[in-house]
Amino acid sequence: MKKSCGEIKNALKNAKTALIATHVDPDGDAIGSALALGMVLEQLGIRTAYYCQDSVPQIYRFLPGADKIKREVKDFNRFDVACVVDASDLARVGGRLDLKQCAPLIINLDHHPDNTLFGDVNCVKQSSCVGELIYDLAVLFKIKVDKKMADCLYTSIITDTGNFRYDNTTVKTFLIAAELLKAGVDPHELTTRIYDNKSVPAVRIAARALSGVKFSGDRQVGWSVVTEGMMEEVGAKSEDVVGIVDAIRAIEGVEVAVFFREEKGKVKINFRSKDRVNVSELARRFGGGGHLKAAGAVVSGEIAEVELNVTRDIIKHLKALKFLV
Amino acid sequence: MKKSCGEIKNALKNAKTALIATHVDPDGDAIGSALALGMVLEQLGIRTAYYCQDSVPQIYRFLPGADKIKREVKDFNRFDVACVVDASDLARVGGRLDLKQCAPLIINLDHHPDNTLFGDVNCVKQSSCVGELIYDLAVLFKIKVDKKMADCLYTSIITDTGNFRYDNTTVKTFLIAAELLKAGVDPHELTTRIYDNKSVPAVRIAARALSGVKFSGDRQVGWSVVTEGMMEEVGAKSEDVVGIVDAIRAIEGVEVAVFFREEKGKVKINFRSKDRVNVSELARRFGGGGHLKAAGAVVSGEIAEVELNVTRDIIKHLKALKFLV
Repeated sequence: MKKSCGEIKNALKNAKTALIATHVDPDGDAIGSALALGMVLEQLGIRTAYYCQDSVPQIYRFLPGADKIKREVKDFNRFDVACVVDASDLARVGGRLDLKQCAPLIINLDHHPDNTLFGDVNCVKQSSCVGELIYDLAVLFKIKVDKKMADCLYTSIITDTGNFRYDNTTVKTFLIAAELLKAGVDPHELTTRIYDNKSVPAVRIAARALSGVKFSGDRQVGWSVVTEGMMEEVGAKSEDVVGIVDAIRAIEGVEVAVFFREEKGKVKINFRSKDRVNVSELARRFGGGGHLKAAGAVVSGEIAEVELNVTRDIIKHLKALKFLV
Repeated sequence: MKKSCGEIKNALKNAKTALIATHVDPDGDAIGSALALGMVLEQLGIRTAYYCQDSVPQIYRFLPGADKIKREVKDFNRFDVACVVDASDLARVGGRLDLKQCAPLIINLDHHPDNTLFGDVNCVKQSSCVGELIYDLAVLFKIKVDKKMADCLYTSIITDTGNFRYDNTTVKTFLIAAELLKAGVDPHELTTRIYDNKSVPAVRIAARALSGVKFSGDRQVGWSVVTEGMMEEVGAKSEDVVGIVDAIRAIEGVEVAVFFREEKGKVKINFRSKDRVNVSELARRFGGGGHLKAAGAVVSGEIAEVELNVTRDIIKHLKALKFLV
């Protein structure tokens, strides 16, 4: 990866105004790093606006400055610089805004290994989250990290590392976390706000789904089914089923977790892998796709039939790959 | 709290043999800190045995040395010193062994605020877990923390802080975590082993418990009940219910989570608080105790009756404190 974060200093030297943009469907790192970067720029005397094509998810709206993130940009010619955070490609910012029309200079701050280095200045580094890069930037500019900035950066870190669980969690991640606590972060408060906010229907639908979890003979494939009827019974919405497939993966011995959900005459299927199986390959067998350990597909058909066909096919396929015994 | 960890150096100076004991129903800190302390003692040339009245839960058996923890002690007169970890009171070690008969000197290493200072030497300090104290001890004795010890200490930390979520998570906790990663800990591997290893009965009993979660009128108190019959139906063991109370706390709006479990004619009650309620105070109303946000009690009686009495009492008590509206 190209490391040229030092160039940022020059790039910002004469800037008076900046636009910070992040990716569609923003997560905690997108929001947290955008806001923290804005605080750095403001301290440098740069007037800053924020853009995200999609709205800030409810759970991140408590972050200081979250209300400044807008879904449109006015006066888009007036920025000296546009900073893009947490986007591997300019297309990730969404189609509604042409950033190149917003500012003569684009600074790309990202941590994705497949970043296309689309910026005029590219600060692209391997790190747990873009928040880590912004922290380094604050240090570089000798800007004090206050509680507000620390809350944003801590949100970046925990949401991108699964609260220090994923393998992007490093010594540096923990050292920065320690500094953020010194700056006033309350880890209990932030994690409670972000993680302990499950709706009652979400809890009930997960309980229903997990009561009925089924397994292949060797227990390496685990799956669960949620019908529209079950959703209605507990008053669950589609966002309430997020996480059920991860709960199936968290079962001892399960290598592949599959979650089937009936929606409007179709069946949405989520796949997760614990360790050794490439589930994007499995998802492709049903017209879907995704990542190595998280993938999805949508298929037509009656849910019980889809469940039977898909699980049979997966088990057969994994056996052929000599994965299952 | 009394801080006299320095005295340990004198207490261990002439010891050749040690027994390390921890509390009944052991958790990750009990097991992790016992094993890490043993590694420290062995490096000091002290032959060490380990005792726990209950067996090591399956998920902690991968820890190096876990098989050395025994449920009985032979030759119990032969130890120069007995170290008790993670027990606020000698009674927490269980009734089957009289530690005072095992060794002429008892060292009490603990972090519970209500520790009775039962030892001849008491190293009782506020810290996220006893693992933190053992880490300090390793530093005090200038003992290198290798990967094995680091895995044990990291397990202590994550299990007692809810993987850096509870408010016992401090700057020091993160600094130690950073050191443990330097020593070779793989946070993804350890958290997967500990958290993504739920037994099928554990998943089923949690699903049953959460299907039936109940609430006070204002939803600020949430609780769930598991009977011996439910446990038998899904084949669950006592270690399988760990975490249910936290899942109740994770529900939006819930401030106090309570979990009732029937066992051998008694009812075990776990309390958790999200933010504003001191649950150790609540637990004390039923003869129990614990921490501000995590506490427990064991009461006699028929479970449905205990559920009714305890929840009524809690709701009434919290209303009196003007906590509930």
